[in-house]
Amino acid sequence: MRGGSGRSVQSRGSSRRAGRVGMGLELYLDLLSQPCRALYIFARSNNIPFEFKHVELFKDSVLGKKPAAASGAEQPRAGPSNSEGAGKVSLLKKVPALKDGDFTLAECTAILLYLSRKYNTPDHWYPSDIQQRARVDEYLSWHHTNIRANAPKTMWIKVLIPLFTGQPLPSEKLQEVMEGLSTSLKQFEERFLQDKAFIIGSEISLADLVAIVELMQPVGVGCDIFEDRPRLREWRRRVEDAVGKELFFQAHEMILNIKELSNIQIDPQLKEQLAPVLMKMLK
Amino acid sequence: MRGGSGRSVQSRGSSRRAGRVGMGLELYLDLLSQPCRALYIFARSNNIPFEFKHVELFKDSVLGKKPAAASGAEQPRAGPSNSEGAGKVSLLKKVPALKDGDFTLAECTAILLYLSRKYNTPDHWYPSDIQQRARVDEYLSWHHTNIRANAPKTMWIKVLIPLFTGQPLPSEKLQEVMEGLSTSLKQFEERFLQDKAFIIGSEISLADLVAIVELMQPVGVGCDIFEDRPRLREWRRRVEDAVGKELFFQAHEMILNIKELSNIQIDPQLKEQLAPVLMKMLK
Repeated sequence: MRGGSGRSVQSRGSSRRAGRVGMGLELYLDLLSQPCRALYIFARSNNIPFEFKHVELFKDSVLGKKPAAASGAEQPRAGPSNSEGAGKVSLLKKVPALKDGDFTLAECTAILLYLSRKYNTPDHWYPSDIQQRARVDEYLSWHHTNIRANAPKTMWIKVLIPLFTGQPLPSEKLQEVMEGLSTSLKQFEERFLQDKAFIIGSEISLADLVAIVELMQPVGVGCDIFEDRPRLREWRRRVEDAVGKELFFQAHEMILNIKELSNIQIDPQLKEQLAPVLMKMLK
Repeated sequence: MRGGSGRSVQSRGSSRRAGRVGMGLELYLDLLSQPCRALYIFARSNNIPFEFKHVELFKDSVLGKKPAAASGAEQPRAGPSNSEGAGKVSLLKKVPALKDGDFTLAECTAILLYLSRKYNTPDHWYPSDIQQRARVDEYLSWHHTNIRANAPKTMWIKVLIPLFTGQPLPSEKLQEVMEGLSTSLKQFEERFLQDKAFIIGSEISLADLVAIVELMQPVGVGCDIFEDRPRLREWRRRVEDAVGKELFFQAHEMILNIKELSNIQIDPQLKEQLAPVLMKMLK
């Protein structure tokens, strides 16, 4: 499934290669990153052909070296040339990133909307009805300073900070983060999900997709936020069904094995440099 | 200019009242809030008739009592019935909020997009060209965790926290905030503005509007971030010209007089409750 400096990823049930490898759509992703998973799931479940450019986020910027991803026939992996490829999208310092010919684009939401327009994806993802569409926009905006601001902290606390500082954080810190996340989840259920199947009603939209990938981050590090929240758990099941369970778990395979990260050796100098930065992030 | 439980605000040069007062579009705003100013400017410069529902943000939630706004014929002010009106938009706990018949909507970006679609505003605000549109989306997403996350802290530090704690913050704290803001501004200039007149090129878009209102917040509290940044200053001048200087300064009249807030008396009990919350926000 590899080709040239990247690999073409086709959607479920399709084995055709992208028609214009190297000329067509490229997505720079690391599936450890939540927004990257949203894009990956969206592109694949909508049969959008793209070249998967594998960026090793932690290798390139934080962790020094990431362990080999758990085996899995469909798990995207790539050689060094792919990792280097990300440097070519020079405007963009982070994943996810899109390259479509000469056009480059950052920011998950912007890329999702661009793809939905360019490939004219089914209406339910971003409904043409202006009130429904406004509900998606409303969630996407709220998401930034609520779910997105809280959920990822669990990974920093449970995995990355102990890895860099060499000791577990005080349990009060995890409790504080979980309380912040609980407040956001309560609002998510009461204000956005309510008693509907999905955020905008009976069908899945970009809002659900952006939310679910973020909420799987705590699960990966052992904070199963779905456990005591039946309404949220049922919604998660519906989202999995809507995009396809196989694709859903394939996209989440790396994050669900994140604990493997704790086995890697960190360069002492890198540790010294980054430990205070990581601690500050949690203040 | 008052009528019923609100007031109709017409755009520059027009004195007609909204046709369906109480039935049409209502915007719940406090012009001390940056996103509210973006909506106000957008609606007025596009001749969108709306009822201005004045929410006293700090009165209702934080500060106890706000001083009367500086005089100004066009300065939106409203009686008690207006402030209470916000309670009716029960889903929404914060400003800005929109009510359009039975439809309510929160989040500045979502409301701007809804208005641009419903009133079919000129294309440059949110271009139909998908690459241009993606540039607006890209900025709007980046904005949340950069400009929006940093600029408002200047007001908390310079005005609100001293008001509640009774003493100025250590100067290191302001310096720390200004450094964070500087990093965001550098990215804003180099990555988004570059050498263009506006973020997407030769015309103003929603991205510029959302950015400028946020960057006027530090100016209001005496941190003129435009002073030593000629490129940013020229861009600000172009934005003012594009929406009309009169409208721009009318929308910003309250924030440019924010220092008046320091004269108000705060209830001691409220002080005791809120001081630690405010301090935590700055951590």
